[in-house]
Amino acid sequence: MTESNALYAQSGGVTAVINASAAGVIETIRKHPDKIGKLYAARNGIIGVLTEDLIDTSFDSAADIAALRHTPGSIFGSCRHKLGTIEKNRAQYERIVEVFSAHNIRYFFYNGGGDSQDTAYKVSQISKTLGYPITCIGVPKTVDNDLPMTDNSPGFGSVAKYIAISIREAGLDVASMAQSSTKVFVFEVMGRHAGWIAAAGGLAAEKEGDAPHIILFPEITFDPKAFLARVDACVKKYGSCAIVVSEGIRNAEGNFVADSNLADAFGHKQLGGVAPIIAKMIKQELGYKYHWALPDYLQRSARHIASKTDAEQSYAVGQAAVELALAGKNATMPIIVRDSNHPYRWSIGEAPIEKAANTEAKLPRNYITEDGFGITELCREYLQPLIEGEDYPPYKNGLPIYIKLKNTPVAKKLEKTFEV
Amino acid sequence: MTESNALYAQSGGVTAVINASAAGVIETIRKHPDKIGKLYAARNGIIGVLTEDLIDTSFDSAADIAALRHTPGSIFGSCRHKLGTIEKNRAQYERIVEVFSAHNIRYFFYNGGGDSQDTAYKVSQISKTLGYPITCIGVPKTVDNDLPMTDNSPGFGSVAKYIAISIREAGLDVASMAQSSTKVFVFEVMGRHAGWIAAAGGLAAEKEGDAPHIILFPEITFDPKAFLARVDACVKKYGSCAIVVSEGIRNAEGNFVADSNLADAFGHKQLGGVAPIIAKMIKQELGYKYHWALPDYLQRSARHIASKTDAEQSYAVGQAAVELALAGKNATMPIIVRDSNHPYRWSIGEAPIEKAANTEAKLPRNYITEDGFGITELCREYLQPLIEGEDYPPYKNGLPIYIKLKNTPVAKKLEKTFEV
Repeated sequence: MTESNALYAQSGGVTAVINASAAGVIETIRKHPDKIGKLYAARNGIIGVLTEDLIDTSFDSAADIAALRHTPGSIFGSCRHKLGTIEKNRAQYERIVEVFSAHNIRYFFYNGGGDSQDTAYKVSQISKTLGYPITCIGVPKTVDNDLPMTDNSPGFGSVAKYIAISIREAGLDVASMAQSSTKVFVFEVMGRHAGWIAAAGGLAAEKEGDAPHIILFPEITFDPKAFLARVDACVKKYGSCAIVVSEGIRNAEGNFVADSNLADAFGHKQLGGVAPIIAKMIKQELGYKYHWALPDYLQRSARHIASKTDAEQSYAVGQAAVELALAGKNATMPIIVRDSNHPYRWSIGEAPIEKAANTEAKLPRNYITEDGFGITELCREYLQPLIEGEDYPPYKNGLPIYIKLKNTPVAKKLEKTFEV
Repeated sequence: MTESNALYAQSGGVTAVINASAAGVIETIRKHPDKIGKLYAARNGIIGVLTEDLIDTSFDSAADIAALRHTPGSIFGSCRHKLGTIEKNRAQYERIVEVFSAHNIRYFFYNGGGDSQDTAYKVSQISKTLGYPITCIGVPKTVDNDLPMTDNSPGFGSVAKYIAISIREAGLDVASMAQSSTKVFVFEVMGRHAGWIAAAGGLAAEKEGDAPHIILFPEITFDPKAFLARVDACVKKYGSCAIVVSEGIRNAEGNFVADSNLADAFGHKQLGGVAPIIAKMIKQELGYKYHWALPDYLQRSARHIASKTDAEQSYAVGQAAVELALAGKNATMPIIVRDSNHPYRWSIGEAPIEKAANTEAKLPRNYITEDGFGITELCREYLQPLIEGEDYPPYKNGLPIYIKLKNTPVAKKLEKTFEV
């Protein structure tokens, strides 16, 4: 066994399949005991690094690690914490080097989205900036699908599948009730800056009249008049109207509609959610009875209906991250490459982390129909393979079995503590 | 083929498995062409009867009818419409007799909850009140599980399973984020008058510290002080707190908390939802960052994760309804009888519709822990078998295949129309 250890951590909003990436990292490292000694995990992402709050993954059985593939959430804890620049926050970087050095950590794998890859990039530069030899590989993940370079972001396919299934099911519900009761259903989905998740709802509409009838994207300025006219026409034609709305839609002034309170002259903000605002607007202007839903965390943790494609890709980027590290790469990130659409084929490529950091890939305009209320065939062709396949977890007592690891702490070696 | 026809209709809020009951009715009637000629369906429940808006189900293939077993929503449309008393609404009843008579309808199957069984009961009395020979059988259904006499209501097991899975998944999410971000998750579930659905969330908590940590039931007066103390203790002990709240919780004055606006001195009502009110209270009083979710229709239409037990029972009550009708019963309803808990065994019994109408079975006090924030072992023992088993629909293109029937209209025979 070598003395070079590795450290893995998860960061940012979690996904249904981020732990599949963890499994990919851990299982691949276990195949190379000659090259990597211990694999540690940092509790709560970079915070666990700074506070020397490490976990020794070697106490967990192969079966338990394999079960990560079907367990949602972040098995080692996540965080929302970005490293500042080394110029202004040198103490933080020195602390990271102290922790790495104390535990012989030579490989660092950071699993997250754009903000997290910014942190990963900064860590990858420590060899240059502070002279500590570290190999840092980013592992991509985000439900928002807004990472650049990669064809799609691991984590997105599962939320896309959940949203498409949910609006199909709720669309049948509202259509059932419409004759004498609820005629409009408003479904709010995540994606504050990019409409990928909202677009995924459009996959449910395969035939004329299918739900969703309208999608509101953050990329399209919200026009209440055009929207209400469309809702009215939809109810008159199909009897009911199912709407997917992104949390991030903005009005003509560029403000989030969710932050507006159209009903309240006193300026009191809503407690959250654009769906109730849209729903009330419909009631006031058109008189239709409505229901609305806001699944929030449910959409990004719905491992019970994860996309098989997504689960496989999430595992693959974890595996590839280790292979890249062992091949001597640094400051890089495995990405998904789409090799063909019919049949769908993908492979793993790589891209510099630096370019993944702090960039948001928005929905291209030609993925949205000209009227701004739906997705084009081009968009459907892009999205469809990402939700392909079911990958059910095992069940016991009617509920999915989600693993908890031992999360055995590593004894601290540093005397000093560090405040984050 | 006989000239006696039958009519089936669905009523009230829909469920993930009400169409399994439809399949049970249709497939069983198709086995008895000597006794029942055509099976018609009324579009949108009793409204379709009154307006002579009937569907001939005989044009739909056996395969399509079988697919109803895995299709959510109401395949013929539902309604929220109750018949008034015959004393005050004689014209309605005479109209029903005209429609029945015009189409030789001798059997009527009405699939719904407490309100709908009130209508079914009134129809069942037409032989007595108006002299038209009709056999009326109720088919039980409601996600609220508040029908009396039956051990459980078809439709409940599936929403129970969805809620328990969802809070388990979201609980892992909030626990992942808690160190540096969201610490509290509030999950609002249906059940305005009875806490069965909220209680089902409790199934997810199998071990100390598991989500949900707190359940708020409509049967327990909401005590903000005790609640907040519990939330705080939970966050301090486990790092995060996952809460299931019934939409129907009430304050000490007996008013729905959802109707109160604790934040707004001007008396402006919230646009809906008790979850954001509870969440904001936690933020204001304890300072914890929160997320909240409100799945609304998603919970009752989530056929993708329906309970197998529920799907089977829903089919069985449809089948039994036809058998009861053919056995000459009237004004009765098949019910689920629990024969044993270990192993779970059930059979079909029967009960008078009259007793099912307009009654709400609440959660017994001994199903709720003494502190009012959780479920007892007795409750768990009752609930657990109802979510047992998965019954996945078939998939295509990553999405469940839900059937649409031909819904072939029956030619109207009456000259008069009828305003509902």
